[in-house]
Amino acid sequence: MATEISGTRRPGGRTERTRLAALNATLELLGERGYAELTVEAVAERSGVHKTTLYRRWESAEGLVAAALLMGTEQEWTAPDTGSLEGDLRGINLELVHYFTSPGERELPTASISAAFLSDRAADALREFYVDRHARSAAVVDRAVERGEVPPGTDAVEVVRVACGPVFYRLFVSREGVTPEDADLAAKAAAAAAKAGVFTAGSAGTAVPPA
Amino acid sequence: MATEISGTRRPGGRTERTRLAALNATLELLGERGYAELTVEAVAERSGVHKTTLYRRWESAEGLVAAALLMGTEQEWTAPDTGSLEGDLRGINLELVHYFTSPGERELPTASISAAFLSDRAADALREFYVDRHARSAAVVDRAVERGEVPPGTDAVEVVRVACGPVFYRLFVSREGVTPEDADLAAKAAAAAAKAGVFTAGSAGTAVPPA
Repeated sequence: MATEISGTRRPGGRTERTRLAALNATLELLGERGYAELTVEAVAERSGVHKTTLYRRWESAEGLVAAALLMGTEQEWTAPDTGSLEGDLRGINLELVHYFTSPGERELPTASISAAFLSDRAADALREFYVDRHARSAAVVDRAVERGEVPPGTDAVEVVRVACGPVFYRLFVSREGVTPEDADLAAKAAAAAAKAGVFTAGSAGTAVPPA
Repeated sequence: MATEISGTRRPGGRTERTRLAALNATLELLGERGYAELTVEAVAERSGVHKTTLYRRWESAEGLVAAALLMGTEQEWTAPDTGSLEGDLRGINLELVHYFTSPGERELPTASISAAFLSDRAADALREFYVDRHARSAAVVDRAVERGEVPPGTDAVEVVRVACGPVFYRLFVSREGVTPEDADLAAKAAAAAAKAGVFTAGSAGTAVPPA
């Protein structure tokens, strides 16, 4: 999920400074008010970037939100490397629990998930963010294959989806809330299913990987 | 998730007919416009129930939505009974995929999930709906324990959360969309983890249930 970033990978000229000011202000306001209440005027006021510039470059509040959500792909996040698949998945899930439940922190990622219900462009940006996050998370499964913990051919992204799915389900579907223990159990379940060979192409949940 | 119901378990006097008219109109409008655009006035117009009655009984649009979402607990839903845990979980997941992806059907359940981001009372109603749905779904795990498919003491609701979590994750978090094949794989993963003993209290993902 997008979080405010102060640096950027591109060299920072005036255009880049304007971009960061506008998009960081958008993220702040998204977390504070939610998508429905976010206006270009408010972003102009918060960022000090002129309204005309905002409209020219991002068209609308929706365009600002979509661009701001994509900033998440510029973050330098890497998946945990604990030495075991279960440990790595637990690490990913505990980060999620922290990020989505801590007061003062959960507001922005929650508003991002919510915005995608109201805006197709926000939904597209969120999808792109998760494509990037999935690709980075796949490392935990690749390492597990190398260690012989799970069969070769294990679908890494699917393992990640099964690990974190129950965390998001509790948060945003069944609305039960989620604890670190819940996140831990979901990680265990995904690791156990991966070890049983469920995520290898053509497997039918057997422990034997395809030849 | 709440769907329109034409019957009720309570005998239908005038008060009950008014209730059904108001709450079914609320569900229709929720699916058509979403929570943010739903007004008591529109419910009055759609249902033929006088605005004063709606305000007296449900206070606000939020109160109407919360009550309408709880109607889902009045539905006569039972979990599939296919003879295997994996088959039952697949059945549950395929129902979800159908319900949340079919045009003309997905609008209401999607708006219900979305409403919970904007209203605490909608979130409470959604939680209550899922408590009921979890309790009914637990039968698939109870039967699997009886058949000896999974260890005694398996946490039935957790199995269900792990099975359907990835479906909702794809729909509303990573925004990738979901296919019946995806739903099938998530069901397989949950069943495999359950068989490995992950969901028995005190287990650490071993295949041996506690004595």
